[in-house]
Amino acid sequence: MEQFNLDHIGIAVKNLDSSLVWYQRSFGFQLESRERIETSGVEVVFLKLPNTKLELITPISAASKLNSFLEKRGEGLHHICYEVADIRAELARMTALGFELIDKTPRPGAHGSQIAFISPKSTEGVLTELCEYPKHQGN
Amino acid sequence: MEQFNLDHIGIAVKNLDSSLVWYQRSFGFQLESRERIETSGVEVVFLKLPNTKLELITPISAASKLNSFLEKRGEGLHHICYEVADIRAELARMTALGFELIDKTPRPGAHGSQIAFISPKSTEGVLTELCEYPKHQGN
Repeated sequence: MEQFNLDHIGIAVKNLDSSLVWYQRSFGFQLESRERIETSGVEVVFLKLPNTKLELITPISAASKLNSFLEKRGEGLHHICYEVADIRAELARMTALGFELIDKTPRPGAHGSQIAFISPKSTEGVLTELCEYPKHQGN
Repeated sequence: MEQFNLDHIGIAVKNLDSSLVWYQRSFGFQLESRERIETSGVEVVFLKLPNTKLELITPISAASKLNSFLEKRGEGLHHICYEVADIRAELARMTALGFELIDKTPRPGAHGSQIAFISPKSTEGVLTELCEYPKHQGN
């Protein structure tokens, strides 16, 4: 098993613009990137902290699962994401251990990453994401 | 305003022993410390990640607010904690900005820290903790 690094904490918000301004004004966090992920029906911003990132995430499609989360639980902590070097190997390991995967194969995430979610039913109530970033030659 | 570092993510669990074993087996996280915080009515373990920590937290007193959280929402993401250098200065800054503080003055946390919680009502639904660690001479 490889060592998991915390990539980001996902926070569900209703209005991305006002939440972004709120986080910048309240805690001084800097905007790293903003992206619409059409395949997931969400728009996200990433905020830089010295040792990790926050992801503010809002639905942009009626089909997004985030709508029901916001209706049921309101704004707040949504998921945590671990960065892994080989997401397919990790998903295979987790499948063998009996984890319930929401994404059995990786799908596109922000920043050109490949991501997969694991059901909170098999992760002690914590919606858990894995992400693998593209390897850059020369980095 | 000083730069906020993510100190840890707090995760509410019902059984600390079994959750600790689960996190160690599933993700390979190493135990950093275990502590009963009687003044808060909780027992916690800290797990080491390369860039931050997870705090598993469970109630050990009927008076702990964590009981109602677990009843209403079940196990899962509970709070995030930022480390600050001067918690009293940050609480004063937040009071001036109109934040609703759960702890108007710091109280004892794990590892000899001073901590204070900010109401999720004024932090976009995210229960937010600040912590200040004791300064060690010579470090």
